[in-house]
Amino acid sequence: MNTIADVQSTHDMRNQSINRVGIRGLRLPLRLSHEEQATVATVAMSVYLPAEQKGTHMSRFVALIESFDEVIDYDTLKLLTHTMLRDLDSNAGEIEIQAPFFRTKTAPISGIKSLMDYDITLTGSIENNLYHQTLKMVIPVTSLCPCSKEISAYGAHNQRSHVTVCLCSADAIEIEEMIALIENQASCQLYGLLKRPDEKFVTEYAYDHPKFVEDIVRDVAAVLKAEKRIQRFVVESENFESIHNHSAYAKIVYP
Amino acid sequence: MNTIADVQSTHDMRNQSINRVGIRGLRLPLRLSHEEQATVATVAMSVYLPAEQKGTHMSRFVALIESFDEVIDYDTLKLLTHTMLRDLDSNAGEIEIQAPFFRTKTAPISGIKSLMDYDITLTGSIENNLYHQTLKMVIPVTSLCPCSKEISAYGAHNQRSHVTVCLCSADAIEIEEMIALIENQASCQLYGLLKRPDEKFVTEYAYDHPKFVEDIVRDVAAVLKAEKRIQRFVVESENFESIHNHSAYAKIVYP
Amino acid sequence: MNTIADVQSTHDMRNQSINRVGIRGLRLPLRLSHEEQATVATVAMSVYLPAEQKGTHMSRFVALIESFDEVIDYDTLKLLTHTMLRDLDSNAGEIEIQAPFFRTKTAPISGIKSLMDYDITLTGSIENNLYHQTLKMVIPVTSLCPCSKEISAYGAHNQRSHVTVCLCSADAIEIEEMIALIENQASCQLYGLLKRPDEKFVTEYAYDHPKFVEDIVRDVAAVLKAEKRIQRFVVESENFESIHNHSAYAKIVYP
Amino acid sequence: MNTIADVQSTHDMRNQSINRVGIRGLRLPLRLSHEEQATVATVAMSVYLPAEQKGTHMSRFVALIESFDEVIDYDTLKLLTHTMLRDLDSNAGEIEIQAPFFRTKTAPISGIKSLMDYDITLTGSIENNLYHQTLKMVIPVTSLCPCSKEISAYGAHNQRSHVTVCLCSADAIEIEEMIALIENQASCQLYGLLKRPDEKFVTEYAYDHPKFVEDIVRDVAAVLKAEKRIQRFVVESENFESIHNHSAYAKIVYP
Repeated sequence: MNTIADVQSTHDMRNQSINRVGIRGLRLPLRLSHEEQATVATVAMSVYLPAEQKGTHMSRFVALIESFDEVIDYDTLKLLTHTMLRDLDSNAGEIEIQAPFFRTKTAPISGIKSLMDYDITLTGSIENNLYHQTLKMVIPVTSLCPCSKEISAYGAHNQRSHVTVCLCSADAIEIEEMIALIENQASCQLYGLLKRPDEKFVTEYAYDHPKFVEDIVRDVAAVLKAEKRIQRFVVESENFESIHNHSAYAKIVYP
Repeated sequence: MNTIADVQSTHDMRNQSINRVGIRGLRLPLRLSHEEQATVATVAMSVYLPAEQKGTHMSRFVALIESFDEVIDYDTLKLLTHTMLRDLDSNAGEIEIQAPFFRTKTAPISGIKSLMDYDITLTGSIENNLYHQTLKMVIPVTSLCPCSKEISAYGAHNQRSHVTVCLCSADAIEIEEMIALIENQASCQLYGLLKRPDEKFVTEYAYDHPKFVEDIVRDVAAVLKAEKRIQRFVVESENFESIHNHSAYAKIVYP
Repeated sequence: MNTIADVQSTHDMRNQSINRVGIRGLRLPLRLSHEEQATVATVAMSVYLPAEQKGTHMSRFVALIESFDEVIDYDTLKLLTHTMLRDLDSNAGEIEIQAPFFRTKTAPISGIKSLMDYDITLTGSIENNLYHQTLKMVIPVTSLCPCSKEISAYGAHNQRSHVTVCLCSADAIEIEEMIALIENQASCQLYGLLKRPDEKFVTEYAYDHPKFVEDIVRDVAAVLKAEKRIQRFVVESENFESIHNHSAYAKIVYP
Repeated sequence: MNTIADVQSTHDMRNQSINRVGIRGLRLPLRLSHEEQATVATVAMSVYLPAEQKGTHMSRFVALIESFDEVIDYDTLKLLTHTMLRDLDSNAGEIEIQAPFFRTKTAPISGIKSLMDYDITLTGSIENNLYHQTLKMVIPVTSLCPCSKEISAYGAHNQRSHVTVCLCSADAIEIEEMIALIENQASCQLYGLLKRPDEKFVTEYAYDHPKFVEDIVRDVAAVLKAEKRIQRFVVESENFESIHNHSAYAKIVYP
């Protein structure tokens, strides 16, 4: 067995470096954020491969992430990204961790508590010796159409929408704090569990806060721009229109 | 080449017949229904394999469906299913054709025309020398919550819902006729294109026709039971609640 | 607030009972099986609704599952299903819990350990005062084509396949034990992490154990039939053919 | 009706322009490329919205694409993009048309013909008065692992892979020509229909052309760089490993 060939380490003659090579779609349980939530993540890891090297060592990515037993937060993701580059003997690369994130919410009138789920993606990358991190959150909300409200004698069409925010920050930003800030810009927030008095509240609240898809991205952009720890962001909203079989969509890229 | 082995035709000793063996996920363009709509279908085809036969001949399924150049309707699907059994030398089997179906709709006030898309699945199967066909339709509609309307001073939460009907009929049933019948049981229908007067109409119409997920399946069941050509059906509704991040769901199986 | 209307409890006049009504797509963290694995589940819960009742009480489903803090196994799922019927005042219903399940595997030569992920679905249902449970597992494996091996001078096409087993048993069946039994019937098992000696082993092992999609379902059926605790099962295999852009598929229903 | 309010046209005070606003997920039948293939597309259309305008006019996007009855190719997509900007009174915007594309392939030995399906996305965008077009193709192929071949006494693991190429070209590039060029860089091409002599051929061909995920992207990059009509491209390959439950992945960005 000690003479088994190492094809990946042979010399490549094509004079073509590879921006990223690695693994994706690896699913594993891990703990997330300072609350140490137990969740299930889908992981992608990749590095730069220089022109002269035929192949990377795929098993090292798996070995690294499987042996990593710390809670994933901004600090540990940075450490993990640096460790990956060392293990794979590269100077650039990226780790992307996508997982559901849960947050306990309190119903607005009854005060009853329940969980809401959000898809979040944490990315750590190193390029030119600089480390960058991004936090992407998909936040489901209610949107209620201002036009429908204005022109109709009663009622207004509303629907579930996905507000997606991807932000870059040099500092650690709490996921939960960001979600709360963004949810607040929609026509109404969602809840796992609502009693009848709560349902009355959210119905009337949404009717009192009609927002186009344009309004949602503008209002989210305003609160993100006011947050000095955030350097760059993209905010998108996709409204799964209740009167059509397609979506309304808007995007703001800052700066 | 003429001595190439035919492994599939060898004798199998495990004394285990196979209920269905064949292909799935084959995507190809075809024409659908009496309107000869050009669409793209995903096809599954399978047959019964007796215990003594090691394997089926997969390429014959592909050859059959690719050479079939007729419009897929009830008659041709029956013919196709019988031909598959003959080609594969089996006495039982099933063909499932899933494709988007398009229907021109007229906006309720402006009269402007646009397309709506529906996912439909036609299935033809033969078991014990009997041919059965089923038609499954996923019909997107608006649902508006009666509770939310009743308890709120103004407004009512509403959302897109998927009404799924799977029906068995000895006769040919027009897809378009069925869709129109079912759409009419929701709080409101969907349209590709609505002008402002139309948007006012659908907003008020939905508010005037509040329906729980339970109401939708009951009202659809009532019109399907009244349709004498239909022997059996299952109706489901999934409402993508605009106040929660999960769905409300109901199902009626008849008889 | 105490006079808020309860629309769901009003009397329905349509004389149409509803087979199942409830929620689906509710995502939440939970612990699974005797190993107490932390995972993220997607839950569907529904009950029978008698003809005279207008609507069910959706929030009770959410309240029940969110307050359930025990590990989900066969015993607790049974308890949960009975509790749901009591809470919803019904005599029939069903709970379906779908979640990734993880198992530590040992590479065949190096002995290195890594995780493998499987999608499993546990279902508990009550109908006519009888409780039934099913366990469904999607098990990814390698399949290697016997025909390709036989007719080719060298090599053989192989690919990832999904073996799906849904089984009914009156007794508790360990998920991990079942997975190990089923994986063993494929051309080869999958592993998260393989060193080069392991890769040599699995390559040669798969070549030494060529199996058609028909062979896989037959061999899985044989081991399940030999397991006396299992009353009924369905085994399916879908091979994502590496030489086509569609799948080969087979299914055995027992009995 | 003639006094119905136009909320979208009111003045917005937030001083925040929107990079893109429009629709997505609109599904409709259309004809593609010079072969006038009938297919079903999913369309996204969006424009820049200046800071002072409250909302765009969503129905104009739908009206435009539904009334467009020409075959979609490079010329008509450019026309369509310009027309969208005129209809929506904007100076920047983007149309994305995603659809399955079919190509008749000839089996290598038997010469039997069958269809292969590919997901393609055509994008036309205008920014700063400049029009850009991109063509993205997802091309399923076979990859066979050189390491597995080298270290094993017999056999080699292989699998389906997706090679995704997104390219920018000032000139019209035939989709079919590009697909043929790219497919040829994999371990082997896929076919809808293969007879036994063909299966022998593709099995041996793949074994004779082992390629890592790194080799595939390098070899595709080489042929694309040699094609002078192409200014920029990204090539990715995702190999759905037959020995793991995750993918190997590589990406080259040029320049």
